[in-house]
Amino acid sequence: MPDIRILTESELRGVVGLSVDLVDRIMEAFRSLASGRVVMPPILSMAIAEHNGEVDVKTAYMPGLDGFAIKVSPGFFDNPKLGLPSTSGLMMLLSARTGQVQALLLDNGYLTDLRTAAAGAVAARALSRPDATTACIMGAGMQARMQLQALCLVRPIRRAVVWARDADKAGAAAAGMSALLDMPVTAMADPQAAVAAADIVITTTPATTPVLRADWLRPGQHVTAMGSDQHGKNEIDPAALTRARYVPDRLSQVRSLGELRSAIEAGLIASDQSFAELGEVLSGTAPGRQSPDEITIADLTGTGVQDTAIATFALAKAGAAGTTIHS
Amino acid sequence: MPDIRILTESELRGVVGLSVDLVDRIMEAFRSLASGRVVMPPILSMAIAEHNGEVDVKTAYMPGLDGFAIKVSPGFFDNPKLGLPSTSGLMMLLSARTGQVQALLLDNGYLTDLRTAAAGAVAARALSRPDATTACIMGAGMQARMQLQALCLVRPIRRAVVWARDADKAGAAAAGMSALLDMPVTAMADPQAAVAAADIVITTTPATTPVLRADWLRPGQHVTAMGSDQHGKNEIDPAALTRARYVPDRLSQVRSLGELRSAIEAGLIASDQSFAELGEVLSGTAPGRQSPDEITIADLTGTGVQDTAIATFALAKAGAAGTTIHS
Repeated sequence: MPDIRILTESELRGVVGLSVDLVDRIMEAFRSLASGRVVMPPILSMAIAEHNGEVDVKTAYMPGLDGFAIKVSPGFFDNPKLGLPSTSGLMMLLSARTGQVQALLLDNGYLTDLRTAAAGAVAARALSRPDATTACIMGAGMQARMQLQALCLVRPIRRAVVWARDADKAGAAAAGMSALLDMPVTAMADPQAAVAAADIVITTTPATTPVLRADWLRPGQHVTAMGSDQHGKNEIDPAALTRARYVPDRLSQVRSLGELRSAIEAGLIASDQSFAELGEVLSGTAPGRQSPDEITIADLTGTGVQDTAIATFALAKAGAAGTTIHS
Repeated sequence: MPDIRILTESELRGVVGLSVDLVDRIMEAFRSLASGRVVMPPILSMAIAEHNGEVDVKTAYMPGLDGFAIKVSPGFFDNPKLGLPSTSGLMMLLSARTGQVQALLLDNGYLTDLRTAAAGAVAARALSRPDATTACIMGAGMQARMQLQALCLVRPIRRAVVWARDADKAGAAAAGMSALLDMPVTAMADPQAAVAAADIVITTTPATTPVLRADWLRPGQHVTAMGSDQHGKNEIDPAALTRARYVPDRLSQVRSLGELRSAIEAGLIASDQSFAELGEVLSGTAPGRQSPDEITIADLTGTGVQDTAIATFALAKAGAAGTTIHS
């Protein structure tokens, strides 16, 4: 019977955070996905309508790594009424050679937050102009802060603006980011003006109707849309996708879960139209930004390779932390 | 942050085993499945061909239960060469109201063995003749023993025979069962004679070509086939399905994973032919055995409701056992 390492959220927070090293690992995961040797089955998703909840299970096997992660992500959207966060969950790391459970990472979604933010940085590094210095963050939640934090690891961002539907939350988020990153971050009430102020726009909302209009975008801007990860979500005006270089994290997923879904439903893009994935751009097998004036859009729905990459990374960083249970 | 109960395999073995109570819970799970109110998504399955392994993830939500299980079942078939069991894994129990992880059952597959054996007893109770006194077990593994043990909880079995491809293993299994159940259990070298000797036949092999021929079956017999749970497995001669009342655990699963797959591929049964499921027979919404002379076949591929039922049952039985981790 195998020994199983157990790490709690606080132990994980103590050993792994946003870093260039983590961004590089997530970049490698996307490259691996593009190699065609990764095994990544479709997401298992179960809705519990009675309690306004859902649970997703993601996994991926990346050749070359000793282990693979299975991630369980519940989202129960009435939880805030009970004083609980909407999302929780854990990751398991299994041996790729024997299938035995090696570690349980009881992260309550922390590692997902990290790998999602790191993917934003990967997308910006692959697609945005290297001289980008200003960012617009749409949304005021945890990912709003973490996406900006991750972006600052890969681009020389000097100031940022925040827009959110709730102006008070936008103000509080801007103040928090400004303190954390020691740079000017201001809330703006007008989303068009906020977008106009930025070289890079990151949308981090749970919107079901677009928060970013196509005609607000100007040449040279890069957009990362990371909010849409379920049927029914939509942050970007579908018309924007036809005017930009559009790069999804996983084509088969964005057709049903990402911004592409809305563009297909709007009849603007054929359901079988192909787009090179982020991993292909990173591997050099598909083109990235072709000119300083091009508009680029990255559509991130979240992939199992990111989970396998961060679970492996976190366990390696953990050293002697945690508890071992002899199962 | 929630407290998570952790129970190890040895702790679970101390609190839950095969019992009529467990068989009843598994029966209720099948009834619930037939109610149409259960949410049970398709199995997430990932093959790691490089290491001759696969991992399946199953889940199901049953209205009325406080929690639902997510089960991770790895099967790595080169493990015996390393001195490790092929199968391992764990179950998680999550709150159906908040999605938060309540318990981790580090059972290494023990609860799966139990709920699989209990399902065999449920099938026999639903379909076999109540006066069945003899059993033939095909296969000599863990499930061979446990299926016979579970069968004895629901039918007045007085003797059993065991057939397996490896005669030595059959002999050892028969001796073990005889000692455990305190009744005559003998190994037989001729599978046809073994089947002829029994009122109830249970196939528990990993066969990919039939071990039970259609013309060996005689009126009144009941067969439970529980070995087939993957594409490519096949224990029962497809022709047998056309001569018997065939009852699957889950129609959508047996079409691709169960004995029905082989019958469809052999052209004996149309791919869209419908069969009432075990839960419907148990609920009385579909007919079970119609006469003492009818031949009945239950095809069990394993369902997420069984996992949710046994995880809930095991946690309730656990009392104060286990460890609590503040995640």
